[in-house]
Amino acid sequence: MADNATHATANIGVVGLAVMGSNLARNLASREGNTVAVFNRSPERTRSLVSEHPEAGFVASETIEEFVASLSTPRTAIIMVQAGSGTDAVIDQLTALFEPGDIIVDGGNALFTDTIRREKTVSATGVHFVGAGISGGEEGALKGPSIMPGGSAESYTTLGPILSSIAAVVDGVPCVTHVGTDGAGHFVKMIHNGIEYADMQLIAEAYDLLRNTGGLTPAEIGEVFAEWNRGELESYLIEITAEVLKQVDATTGKPFVDIVVDAAGQKGTGTWTVQAALDLGTPVSGIAEAVFARGLSSHPEQRRAAAGLPGPAPLGAITDRAAFVEDVRLALYASKIVAYSQGFDIIVAGAEKYGWDIRKGDIAKIWRGGCIIRAQFLNRITEAYDENPGLVALITAPYFTEAVARAQESWRRVVAGAAQSGIPAPGFSSSLAYYDGLRAERLPAALIQGQRDFFGAHTYGRVDAPGVFHTLWSGDRTEITLS
Amino acid sequence: MADNATHATANIGVVGLAVMGSNLARNLASREGNTVAVFNRSPERTRSLVSEHPEAGFVASETIEEFVASLSTPRTAIIMVQAGSGTDAVIDQLTALFEPGDIIVDGGNALFTDTIRREKTVSATGVHFVGAGISGGEEGALKGPSIMPGGSAESYTTLGPILSSIAAVVDGVPCVTHVGTDGAGHFVKMIHNGIEYADMQLIAEAYDLLRNTGGLTPAEIGEVFAEWNRGELESYLIEITAEVLKQVDATTGKPFVDIVVDAAGQKGTGTWTVQAALDLGTPVSGIAEAVFARGLSSHPEQRRAAAGLPGPAPLGAITDRAAFVEDVRLALYASKIVAYSQGFDIIVAGAEKYGWDIRKGDIAKIWRGGCIIRAQFLNRITEAYDENPGLVALITAPYFTEAVARAQESWRRVVAGAAQSGIPAPGFSSSLAYYDGLRAERLPAALIQGQRDFFGAHTYGRVDAPGVFHTLWSGDRTEITLS
Repeated sequence: MADNATHATANIGVVGLAVMGSNLARNLASREGNTVAVFNRSPERTRSLVSEHPEAGFVASETIEEFVASLSTPRTAIIMVQAGSGTDAVIDQLTALFEPGDIIVDGGNALFTDTIRREKTVSATGVHFVGAGISGGEEGALKGPSIMPGGSAESYTTLGPILSSIAAVVDGVPCVTHVGTDGAGHFVKMIHNGIEYADMQLIAEAYDLLRNTGGLTPAEIGEVFAEWNRGELESYLIEITAEVLKQVDATTGKPFVDIVVDAAGQKGTGTWTVQAALDLGTPVSGIAEAVFARGLSSHPEQRRAAAGLPGPAPLGAITDRAAFVEDVRLALYASKIVAYSQGFDIIVAGAEKYGWDIRKGDIAKIWRGGCIIRAQFLNRITEAYDENPGLVALITAPYFTEAVARAQESWRRVVAGAAQSGIPAPGFSSSLAYYDGLRAERLPAALIQGQRDFFGAHTYGRVDAPGVFHTLWSGDRTEITLS
Repeated sequence: MADNATHATANIGVVGLAVMGSNLARNLASREGNTVAVFNRSPERTRSLVSEHPEAGFVASETIEEFVASLSTPRTAIIMVQAGSGTDAVIDQLTALFEPGDIIVDGGNALFTDTIRREKTVSATGVHFVGAGISGGEEGALKGPSIMPGGSAESYTTLGPILSSIAAVVDGVPCVTHVGTDGAGHFVKMIHNGIEYADMQLIAEAYDLLRNTGGLTPAEIGEVFAEWNRGELESYLIEITAEVLKQVDATTGKPFVDIVVDAAGQKGTGTWTVQAALDLGTPVSGIAEAVFARGLSSHPEQRRAAAGLPGPAPLGAITDRAAFVEDVRLALYASKIVAYSQGFDIIVAGAEKYGWDIRKGDIAKIWRGGCIIRAQFLNRITEAYDENPGLVALITAPYFTEAVARAQESWRRVVAGAAQSGIPAPGFSSSLAYYDGLRAERLPAALIQGQRDFFGAHTYGRVDAPGVFHTLWSGDRTEITLS
């Protein structure tokens, strides 16, 4: 190995060769113009990757020093290790060996505030540090992911062409863009995952309603999803849902979905998204309800204890199945619009707080391919922001307003029906409540301000005069003007 | 001033004499056996407090050294300054002057993780550090708050009697207990505030529905709340809601609630509660929706842009107003049970994670008086935990199960009606969705696991066999057993 590594022949290196790292390295190696250096802490993994994929022409090293020596300048290395302290160790090693102008890329799922911290430390040495969100799972890494790099604009002149060479391509456009400085890339990747949580939860609720209210079998629902995938809901998640629902368990002959334990796992990025949104004061009920629904499903002891809690008297069967399916489709579409609108609200709020110049339309564009939420729908978001870059809420763009107008009566019927029939639809119902809150002329928040003024002298504003007011609730209940 | 201070005559001291601190100091001074030392950074405030309240017999100091010298041992001082870096400065000053065995109490609204950090630092010097949540606002501080102290059990032998002397008293029991070590007190106070957010949001939704669906005036709704306050909903928040709704604006003659700007403020503890719950994996939809509803109300630019979004066709008027009012009452009660059940879930999860031995029944007991969520209802929670200390979810206790069984048909009608009529009821509807999720025999989380296995090889469990499984979705779709 060392023979190759003594020559600085690789224009890009990958550190960390678990499945994601190996696939990304193979993807890089498969594109013309790239020579790929690879390094893994345990050299056995490096050796097996190299021997399994001779076609890749990997430049392999057994020490980090060799690895660094094998890179041509500006040295560019993508770290693909499990997010956490391991990342810091590798960053420290590379920073010590790299020279000013070289580029360290963290391609893991780091928390964006960690990325901001790391960028600050590394860039102080003159080395560029780029936190890059990479979406698409193992297959995306191999065949073309959606890539969301942050870091300096300067680093992107070197990195952009390399990442463009491996990204998914939609309508001739690679799914990669310079998102913004320091942690912007990992921030936007986090939002992507939050939206993914909401999308999956909404699909799950649609399935549950079609099955338990609509009386359809999983296979029939699979056909419904396949059909939906040919319309405005067309997306990767709808497509694979159809596949999962049509799958039959070989052991039992039952629908696959019925033999799976109904406790949804999570790896934390949904939680991060909601926590970040809370820090920014952005309501993200759709994503939060999705995170909570997974949490609820994973508390077996509570679910066992609650199994006997009373539900409603059984309702009559659906009389018009096709109409019900269409209602659910529209409820799903409207709820999805709310989830994306909320997701972009977080991007807008985060960009303002952290000083990132994020082009929202470009984010929608690079999510069209490679990533889990890829969908035709994202073109509509790009168009909305192209048309009005200062759009204050995605849902108020004409295309989406029209879509919700068309969907809303169905949406209301579905949410009302779920409540009446005892089927949990937290995503559908919270999205509708959010929508009705947003468009409300007056909100009962005025009463909350009254309560807060009563018990805590928190003051209030008046609709008919500027200033800050307080009522002497424990006194004679007159109003005083505080400013 | 210095004359008094040279003698160590005070058994308790207060640092920080803004409204909360002054009121707490006056409360302490009014109880037999207490001599109260007071100190404020700007001595003018100290002087005016002392001159306005000669009856208190305050021992006043103009330097922190004098203040410390005025305290008898074990020295015990309660810090009542704005949470944040100011708190750290005062803690540092006191720690430097105090001796082992002395007690520093932070009575502000500190984040519990800050309290854990501070306790560690201070207790290393031999001085006790107690984070104490104090609820009840300015009036509570003066007349009797609910107090939630953490810190060492040893510190409570000194502190307990002092805090008991000033706390609210219900059925002869002071509203104070040693919650648990280090940050437990501030943690539980945070949960209290989170529940308060949910409670207020649910009340606001009830008001909104009674007004916009029920057609009642604010004054009539005030009467309804006053009536509700004589039943199982009896609580301070219901009581003051009646008062706020009956209030008439002197300037315009309009209902007070109509002249208040409908943008709800927040000071952050609701946000903390949801973020902590997310860290603990505990679903807290009721509290989260309350935080989001306040956030939504405070985005005027989005609300203006969304004002024209389409709503449903107007529904017919309510035919049986009394029945509707009762439906709303029961929906409020059931949703409130969910909010408290979720709140206690966070306490249970936090206690486990941070190693606190929190007696849930005692927490409900000390919330019966002094604090904002005080209510008869809390007795039922104490009883539920007394009966079954290992209760896995409050809502599964017989009393609450029965209450929800009685309420659920009304609850469902109200949520369905809100969806159909376009009135935002995020708290009611998310609580119902949570309830239906908790009691569901099967959740569509199984489908989510299928999706996750499809796109990310995240694996799944089978209902009929132990182990971890993966289906080769991009291969021949057979199942492999991973462990």
